[in-house]
Amino acid sequence: MTLKGRDIINIGDLELDEIELILDISKEMLPVARGEKRSRTLDGKVLASLFFEASTRTRLSFETAMHRLGGNVITITGQEGSSLIKGETLADTIRMADAYSDIIALRHPREGAARMSATFSSAPVINGGDGAGQHPTQTLLDLFTIREELGDIGKQNVTIVGDLRYGRTVHSLSLALGRMGATMTFVAPDMIQMPDHIISDLKGMGAKVKRTTDLKAEIPASDVIYMTRIQKERFAEEEEYRKVAGAYKLQVRMLDDAKKHMMIMHPLPRVDEIHPEIDSTRHAKYFAQAFNGVPVRMALLKLILEGE
Amino acid sequence: MTLKGRDIINIGDLELDEIELILDISKEMLPVARGEKRSRTLDGKVLASLFFEASTRTRLSFETAMHRLGGNVITITGQEGSSLIKGETLADTIRMADAYSDIIALRHPREGAARMSATFSSAPVINGGDGAGQHPTQTLLDLFTIREELGDIGKQNVTIVGDLRYGRTVHSLSLALGRMGATMTFVAPDMIQMPDHIISDLKGMGAKVKRTTDLKAEIPASDVIYMTRIQKERFAEEEEYRKVAGAYKLQVRMLDDAKKHMMIMHPLPRVDEIHPEIDSTRHAKYFAQAFNGVPVRMALLKLILEGE
Amino acid sequence: MTLKGRDIINIGDLELDEIELILDISKEMLPVARGEKRSRTLDGKVLASLFFEASTRTRLSFETAMHRLGGNVITITGQEGSSLIKGETLADTIRMADAYSDIIALRHPREGAARMSATFSSAPVINGGDGAGQHPTQTLLDLFTIREELGDIGKQNVTIVGDLRYGRTVHSLSLALGRMGATMTFVAPDMIQMPDHIISDLKGMGAKVKRTTDLKAEIPASDVIYMTRIQKERFAEEEEYRKVAGAYKLQVRMLDDAKKHMMIMHPLPRVDEIHPEIDSTRHAKYFAQAFNGVPVRMALLKLILEGE
Repeated sequence: MTLKGRDIINIGDLELDEIELILDISKEMLPVARGEKRSRTLDGKVLASLFFEASTRTRLSFETAMHRLGGNVITITGQEGSSLIKGETLADTIRMADAYSDIIALRHPREGAARMSATFSSAPVINGGDGAGQHPTQTLLDLFTIREELGDIGKQNVTIVGDLRYGRTVHSLSLALGRMGATMTFVAPDMIQMPDHIISDLKGMGAKVKRTTDLKAEIPASDVIYMTRIQKERFAEEEEYRKVAGAYKLQVRMLDDAKKHMMIMHPLPRVDEIHPEIDSTRHAKYFAQAFNGVPVRMALLKLILEGE
Repeated sequence: MTLKGRDIINIGDLELDEIELILDISKEMLPVARGEKRSRTLDGKVLASLFFEASTRTRLSFETAMHRLGGNVITITGQEGSSLIKGETLADTIRMADAYSDIIALRHPREGAARMSATFSSAPVINGGDGAGQHPTQTLLDLFTIREELGDIGKQNVTIVGDLRYGRTVHSLSLALGRMGATMTFVAPDMIQMPDHIISDLKGMGAKVKRTTDLKAEIPASDVIYMTRIQKERFAEEEEYRKVAGAYKLQVRMLDDAKKHMMIMHPLPRVDEIHPEIDSTRHAKYFAQAFNGVPVRMALLKLILEGE
Repeated sequence: MTLKGRDIINIGDLELDEIELILDISKEMLPVARGEKRSRTLDGKVLASLFFEASTRTRLSFETAMHRLGGNVITITGQEGSSLIKGETLADTIRMADAYSDIIALRHPREGAARMSATFSSAPVINGGDGAGQHPTQTLLDLFTIREELGDIGKQNVTIVGDLRYGRTVHSLSLALGRMGATMTFVAPDMIQMPDHIISDLKGMGAKVKRTTDLKAEIPASDVIYMTRIQKERFAEEEEYRKVAGAYKLQVRMLDDAKKHMMIMHPLPRVDEIHPEIDSTRHAKYFAQAFNGVPVRMALLKLILEGE
């Protein structure tokens, strides 16, 4: 099994044992990711970090991952990215990046952009999020975080909260958790609940899943609570948004009956889904999760550029 | 002969044997440019990549060139560059870059900016394009691409198409090709044809040149077809622009009578001067040309910072 | 004495012997800062260069400092920085940078931002200027420049000119000079003179200080003239601004009676406080001062990340 030269577009393209390999190598990367140990394994290699849409956490963790392995980075962000989107075809822009680098990390506002880019590039493409589409490195770092904190992912009861209808990265995460045998509870108001087709895919895998509107009731049984942002734009009335969003915010006083090891995750940035008081509790794992973007992306860069 | 410490402002400042040296070293750089071989020759050196105007290909290929040689890069782009242009004199900005780096690559919207910058900098300045002025590294990579693909530049019949009146980089390329003995055919509507003074300079060198409006008729005899963009802004009437621009677009069906080795070039980005169907033909060399920005800029960085 | 792991927020937090140590190490850094000697002491380390407000000199000299020591850099500037300021709390942004780097250089428009950031970061934070607040690395490079050029700082008569009321970095510089025993003359129109509380702090240290409106009269006795910009926004009437600003501009003809070794400094960028004719006189030290940003920031990065 090797990931050498592979594009990483969709978490669904990876076999379970490939995911396990990535998580194993991520674990090995930890001391290097923390700057405690030095690696020069990608000395002389160049990552093209193409962010045609802002996503600072994803961009900086890819860049640090490359630096920690001894590699170099060229970057497109902001204005320059926008004018490229307007000025030439994505195919031509990607061919340029291909010519100037060994591997491409791509963030793009258009769904499908990463898959299409991979067809024009001989250098491997890692999807850093394409519109409402896939964001496989986020899923991998989420899985890694759960495994690091709690061990066997298949034994966990994962409660996922927020915008479950439009948030495609939550769909990818759920399908990956389902493949690994986790139990899932989806907490959201009906209008933004997990769609039926995902539920039926999950049931088809034999995953235990349920949908509910009541966050508080699910806290005691949860091993993981995965919070996401509810976007105002989904609601016709500001009034309705405020009512709904208010019901899906975590406060310290709601955690009294939580399991001792229960961990709270969030892909960040957060608005007010998680009260800052929670930051200093043992349950807060969203900053550790953000850090895990580095070792997981290091593992991918290493496996794709070097093989095992 | 050495280029150590030299500013590269205008292709005309370089002797023919200096150009040959740059192309020879560019050839040596190829495996390093492709990431197949590692170099640390510029370890510890810093390139200031100052792009006061967007030019993503030029910027990224300079930066990759520096990284492939083991050097480091500091960058100014976008907003920050614009506010520098407004906020202090170019002389003071360049003195800052001089203090913080070993060599400067400069892109600036104002013609003459590179020459003037060189007078304020003890670090060598490479002109990455200044307004409608010079763009010597583009000319060098164009020459390198022809030599790589076809061998002796002096034996080629180069057909240059598009905006030949205002496109000063085409003037520089033509004068360099003329010095090397190439035959040239200039294809453009009369109002944007190659100016008389360039034609007479070329004839003064003994170069064989002609002007014509008919692209199709020139294809069979061409070794190289160098396409450029025709800018809408040059035309008073949208109608007239569309008529003219339409006549100078390459389509696959126009290449039936082309020589087998005929190569199509374009400085990129393209709009629609070259139909994407051509991309997969043997004639398409514009992506190879873009890649060649890396080895050619590596050769310059190495020769200027290290000598031979 | 060690600075290992220390935040550098306010020049006042540093003991005099710590400042001396930083200046001593800065001196050692000179050949590396100039690119004459190579260091790899921070190999594998990552600096997060977070510029939520443009300050190109500060940013680029931090980045070059890190590169000259063999380290790597991740950067936030411009638009991306602005949207972070709007999109999430500074605390969450800083925690992200903390996770992805070993040390943070921060520029922020809000006074107090650096101090607050340090409380959320386990990685050391260096304040690169926060609003009208502190800018300790500027003060350190100012002190280093005086010591390099003239030797013992305590023996110098330093004339400080311009906006002394609102310019907080001038307050910090004055207090540091006062601690070192320098004599100071503050030259400004009354409405933007050095505030009483700073004067009384300086007198409390035993420093010899005076205030005056007459720049010309102070030139002969000055060892250092430190010019700063007078901001138009401070004045109700354009007319009044022009009159005042005009009186605090240095011209070559004003330097006839200056001491031979008298040095002129300016934090840059300048508008027209110093006539460009002065640039080529022996008195002009503001470009050397800008360069000194590199060795001083190298010394800080090295001392904070490695100890001595």
